Amino acid sequence: MTDGNSSETRFNIQQVQETAINALCGLGLHHEDAIDVADILVAADLLGIRTHGIKRIISYGERVAVKGINPRPQISLEQLAPTIARLNGDNAMGPLIGQKALKSSLEMAGHYGLGATFVNGSNHFGPVMPYAFRAAEQGFASFICSNATTTIAPTGGKAARFGNNPLGFGIPAPDGNHVMLDIALSTVARARIRDARDKGESIPESWATDANGRPTTNPNEALEGLLQPVGGHKGYGLALIVDLLSGLLSNAAYLTHVKAWDKQPDQPQNLGHFFLVIDTRGLGSADWLTQRMHDFSDILHSTPAANPDHPVMLPGERELRNHRQQMRDGLLYDDALYASIRRLAEGG
Amino acid sequence: MTDGNSSETRFNIQQVQETAINALCGLGLHHEDAIDVADILVAADLLGIRTHGIKRIISYGERVAVKGINPRPQISLEQLAPTIARLNGDNAMGPLIGQKALKSSLEMAGHYGLGATFVNGSNHFGPVMPYAFRAAEQGFASFICSNATTTIAPTGGKAARFGNNPLGFGIPAPDGNHVMLDIALSTVARARIRDARDKGESIPESWATDANGRPTTNPNEALEGLLQPVGGHKGYGLALIVDLLSGLLSNAAYLTHVKAWDKQPDQPQNLGHFFLVIDTRGLGSADWLTQRMHDFSDILHSTPAANPDHPVMLPGERELRNHRQQMRDGLLYDDALYASIRRLAEGG
Repeated sequence: MTDGNSSETRFNIQQVQETAINALCGLGLHHEDAIDVADILVAADLLGIRTHGIKRIISYGERVAVKGINPRPQISLEQLAPTIARLNGDNAMGPLIGQKALKSSLEMAGHYGLGATFVNGSNHFGPVMPYAFRAAEQGFASFICSNATTTIAPTGGKAARFGNNPLGFGIPAPDGNHVMLDIALSTVARARIRDARDKGESIPESWATDANGRPTTNPNEALEGLLQPVGGHKGYGLALIVDLLSGLLSNAAYLTHVKAWDKQPDQPQNLGHFFLVIDTRGLGSADWLTQRMHDFSDILHSTPAANPDHPVMLPGERELRNHRQQMRDGLLYDDALYASIRRLAEGG
Repeated sequence: MTDGNSSETRFNIQQVQETAINALCGLGLHHEDAIDVADILVAADLLGIRTHGIKRIISYGERVAVKGINPRPQISLEQLAPTIARLNGDNAMGPLIGQKALKSSLEMAGHYGLGATFVNGSNHFGPVMPYAFRAAEQGFASFICSNATTTIAPTGGKAARFGNNPLGFGIPAPDGNHVMLDIALSTVARARIRDARDKGESIPESWATDANGRPTTNPNEALEGLLQPVGGHKGYGLALIVDLLSGLLSNAAYLTHVKAWDKQPDQPQNLGHFFLVIDTRGLGSADWLTQRMHDFSDILHSTPAANPDHPVMLPGERELRNHRQQMRDGLLYDDALYASIRRLAEGG
């Protein structure tokens, strides 16, 4: 089904899932592992997080090709306490490890109320929101985070020491209107600075520093310098906490011990993640929670807007809207991209 | 022991604790409850968080006097799952409730690895860091947060909907060099804007909006407007998550349901808190954790500094230094302030 003369084609969800699974099997993954990875990447596309969707199969595949990611891992789980597990990902594809970690945490929380899985030996696990969404669908709140390739200087420093360390939360609403936050701890992504440079625009001082650690409004200087953490020392502090939870306590790499996937694609990154979930079903009835979540949204939606064309929204609201719409209408993909993913299926 | 001609006097820690406990008993608290409250407020002063130290006994006392805070509460704890409890604070003084909640979470985590206590019926509980510090001293990591009086507009809105919603984390180091983060989710405190006004200075655009929801650099306009969340939509999202965890899921008030303690001091605020702790002692040996925490600090401390006079620090480092120094040298207090606190002891 093509959209007129555009270079994009629309596919239904089942088609996209099959394409992703076949491509991942082509990279050497077991079929059941490919299903787990595809679930996260297709969910990212459905939520509208296109930078972290099935297009990532291509970059993951490049690392598999140079033996930087292990397509046939022996993932192992150690139970450290009734509600704490540690998972060694054996350098598998990140979303496979993320799915196993989420499952481990959900199982513990189903029994005890809470569950946390500390993960080491991992790679880029996709965006946080699909995991938070899967947990919320089952009635669990979540706090999920990961360390990342080193790109940001500490407050007051002029050398990179930590990554943009994404963190996210999900709070479930029984009627499906979950609140889900998924943020990176740089002020903006590097791509925003490249965009400004390409348009000949200056950038706000809070985005980046030049090579000497001084805040700059010049995108060229910024691209030779470093990203700044969001909110100055507050984002710096949060990024360190994420690294401590996901990297240090999990026995993974942390700070400058994390290898850069783009510069050393053949090396294991040993990234770490932290998956905490809370079973909200014991806190009150579904009616109680639905009513409170509904009231919470109403109070925010009723805020007078600074610009009436842009009403106040809640975190995850736009993504849930994308998800509902695209589940119904299918997903549009660039033809060249989709063809590249399809070709991976033939490598298997 | 006085410091020359200054209007400040230095006291040793035992003297300060006794003064605080006597003042709290004067306000009607049971002696053992006064010990718990004093422990948090004196720890705040020792850490150098003077805005949240024993001076708060005066404002807490004003609310007790108008029956806005209950000095003789019946605090109750419900066990909702093996690792989840809900605590009703019966409108007690906040730090008393905070101590009970921390204890509840530590007990559960001691058995199961994790513990979370959702708190309702509370008041201002002091700063987060003393709780994170107490947990860290026993080997527990923590994630603690609270909602607060409504002062901040959501991103894109021009009316206050949530508070500065403090959140904090602690990661223990067995040698005492814990990493502890304690941040509010406004860009700055309102007091910083008043300071700028008093000095005739302009303020950065990211601090506040005017009454119409437009970012302003004029402190007078800002004081008629609203604080902005730190880091724009990222801080907005985090502040909502804090309110969902501490207010909504705990069955406390949330968003605009929270009453303002300064405008309605005689009304219960029904604030909510969330106390999550993680027993790190099962993750590895004390040597393993000490070595990793030490290496983590070293990597950050070795970052070339933008300004050599201000080396890179970790969250909580300055406060731990204050704590060590003041445990040794005692605490300095303004004489008039100290006398006011002492006078409260006579009210009992």
